[in-house]
Amino acid sequence: MKYGFSHRVRYMKSSAVRDILKVVNKGNVISFAGGLPDENLFPVEAVQQAFQSAIASGNKVLQYGETEGVLELRERLAERMAKKGIHRNPENILVTSGSQQAIDLFARVMFNPGDIILTENPTYLAALQVFESYETKIVAVDSDDDGMLEEDLEDKIARLKPKCIYVVPTYSNPGGKVWSLERRKKLLALAKKYHVVIFEDDPYGEIQFDKAPAPPSIASMDNNKLVLYTSTFSKTVVPAMRIGWIVGPHQIIRLMAQAKQATDLHTNSISQHALIHLMKDFDLDGHIQNLRDTYFQRMHVMKGLLDKVESEELSYITPKGGMFFWVNMPKEINTSELLKVAVDNGVAFVPGAPFYVSDPEQNTMRLNFTNASPEQIEIGMERLVSVINAHQYEPVM
Amino acid sequence: MKYGFSHRVRYMKSSAVRDILKVVNKGNVISFAGGLPDENLFPVEAVQQAFQSAIASGNKVLQYGETEGVLELRERLAERMAKKGIHRNPENILVTSGSQQAIDLFARVMFNPGDIILTENPTYLAALQVFESYETKIVAVDSDDDGMLEEDLEDKIARLKPKCIYVVPTYSNPGGKVWSLERRKKLLALAKKYHVVIFEDDPYGEIQFDKAPAPPSIASMDNNKLVLYTSTFSKTVVPAMRIGWIVGPHQIIRLMAQAKQATDLHTNSISQHALIHLMKDFDLDGHIQNLRDTYFQRMHVMKGLLDKVESEELSYITPKGGMFFWVNMPKEINTSELLKVAVDNGVAFVPGAPFYVSDPEQNTMRLNFTNASPEQIEIGMERLVSVINAHQYEPVM
Repeated sequence: MKYGFSHRVRYMKSSAVRDILKVVNKGNVISFAGGLPDENLFPVEAVQQAFQSAIASGNKVLQYGETEGVLELRERLAERMAKKGIHRNPENILVTSGSQQAIDLFARVMFNPGDIILTENPTYLAALQVFESYETKIVAVDSDDDGMLEEDLEDKIARLKPKCIYVVPTYSNPGGKVWSLERRKKLLALAKKYHVVIFEDDPYGEIQFDKAPAPPSIASMDNNKLVLYTSTFSKTVVPAMRIGWIVGPHQIIRLMAQAKQATDLHTNSISQHALIHLMKDFDLDGHIQNLRDTYFQRMHVMKGLLDKVESEELSYITPKGGMFFWVNMPKEINTSELLKVAVDNGVAFVPGAPFYVSDPEQNTMRLNFTNASPEQIEIGMERLVSVINAHQYEPVM
Repeated sequence: MKYGFSHRVRYMKSSAVRDILKVVNKGNVISFAGGLPDENLFPVEAVQQAFQSAIASGNKVLQYGETEGVLELRERLAERMAKKGIHRNPENILVTSGSQQAIDLFARVMFNPGDIILTENPTYLAALQVFESYETKIVAVDSDDDGMLEEDLEDKIARLKPKCIYVVPTYSNPGGKVWSLERRKKLLALAKKYHVVIFEDDPYGEIQFDKAPAPPSIASMDNNKLVLYTSTFSKTVVPAMRIGWIVGPHQIIRLMAQAKQATDLHTNSISQHALIHLMKDFDLDGHIQNLRDTYFQRMHVMKGLLDKVESEELSYITPKGGMFFWVNMPKEINTSELLKVAVDNGVAFVPGAPFYVSDPEQNTMRLNFTNASPEQIEIGMERLVSVINAHQYEPVM
């Protein structure tokens, strides 16, 4: 039978992330493709204990809950953000089913078909997919390693009148970049000048390698007028809990809560209460420090092997945090073609092209270093380096 | 600052359900307003044990999971539905964050602005809110106690070419009705004749009071071509787990899974695994039988007191299952006005008007009998009956 679907299904692409996850599950392939934390580092005992305490704390915890999220959790999130210079009240916070939902609910209350969104290029794939499903027009702003370039940004804001600027300024996915303080300030100043909302997506901010922290978040420099800031516990605790949050102007957060009510009533409250217990009874910051040290070490192992590629043309930024290397391969290498050979040789990565809004660079790839052990990284990278080196001389077209 | 929101926020109403929940939380008011199960009947120990087993069963459980839902859960859901005559494969099932999300994802892949949806009148408020947020046009079909009336249904299908017919045929909210077998068959036959999709919402099917089960679900009479069927564990286990599911034609389910990926990646997998353990290690059906017995008893207490209203004009259907009485009061009583007096007298209900698609009957109300103890029902109903009896003579306009 033929069904009459909505127009928006045309904009819903079968996701590259899905295909990635399928490769991940293939037995003997070492995968640097996904964006997964290492499950061997999960604080299982603490999570176990937190769920026990949550369920034991009263039957009300198991009842329907408030759409905005459990108040005590929002209070603790407010405290935690305040330590990072983002001073907001619990009523400015909405707890979401992962930060992916924060992006979706924001899009739902903000965008009409044809609305323009400015982003970096490349940027977070699943945000692009959400925005496209609302039939918006996404326009890339020229950037360098420090963030968006002021001139192009102002030109595009003035000319295109975007409804929103979406950025991942800290340890970005996929670029692995950190925006400089100056560029952050410039972005905020232009957003103020032209009254444009900034959506600051910060899932990786806690995964910091440098002793020196990244520059302050853009939200911390805003007086809660222009910046929506979202983060998650998926990278720092466990993804399966599906707890993220978003903070921003009350007018927007209130509408997002209304949208959430129609979408799924409220976020899993057992997980919310478990998280309260993890924030109270567990050394969450100590655990995060341990993740930082471990992931830093893995990044270092991967970097050492990446340097074995015999090419002057290969380049990358050494990540100061986060979960990814973004690699520019020699121009003649098409990484989508290379992937097939790599998988045949027992290693996987993500080609960079799908992360681009426009003008995809076919010679880019993203490598994740958090989901494999140092030993696996060594074996996998040796496989990858030989595949690349072999193809230097016999390029895959 | 003024923000430029999407057009769809105009269709997002501040929900009556929200306001209801606020009344519920007022200390000394006995509330029959919400649609909550009784938290004192939650199988807390079994839930506790199930979460423990889930978390202990391996770190993979805490990792990112598949959008469609955990396969073992979908297999068990398929088995459970097969016992009720709905024979479907796991790949026809999508696990959702409560059945509210099933309604939303369905709407997302199906509806364009202006599309027509046929419903009963009154019907489930939060479904109306979802449909309206997609800028659809909802049209009520004439019904009696047995379901939609064939003639009006066929006339409206033929004339309006609806994209979907939304029904809650078993122990409905708010009507407390059960559709007859004949009406179910007629609806399906007309849907086949005109190629219209049926959305069968069945959150209450398991809460059955009669020895005789309700007629088979419409989905069980369909060969997986036309009927989407959704249900939930919110009424039978605990709402806070946020686990529902939807089953239907693969083409639709696949697109809904794509939409879900952009919305929230996947449903909380700790809850999903806990539910697998509850289905394996716990006498879920015994627990549900206990709920049936307890709720039946409460319904009976409420009925006894409702009969004390001194009016020939008051009428209601005695519920054969579910959680609600739907009461037609004497014509001169406006229940929205009556509510204010009732709350002042320490008892709350929901006025019926918001549940109507069109032509609201101002003299209707919905009474929930599952969330209060028999003692509370007695006290609350005595308060309500005196308020009503007093207003018989001095009508509130």
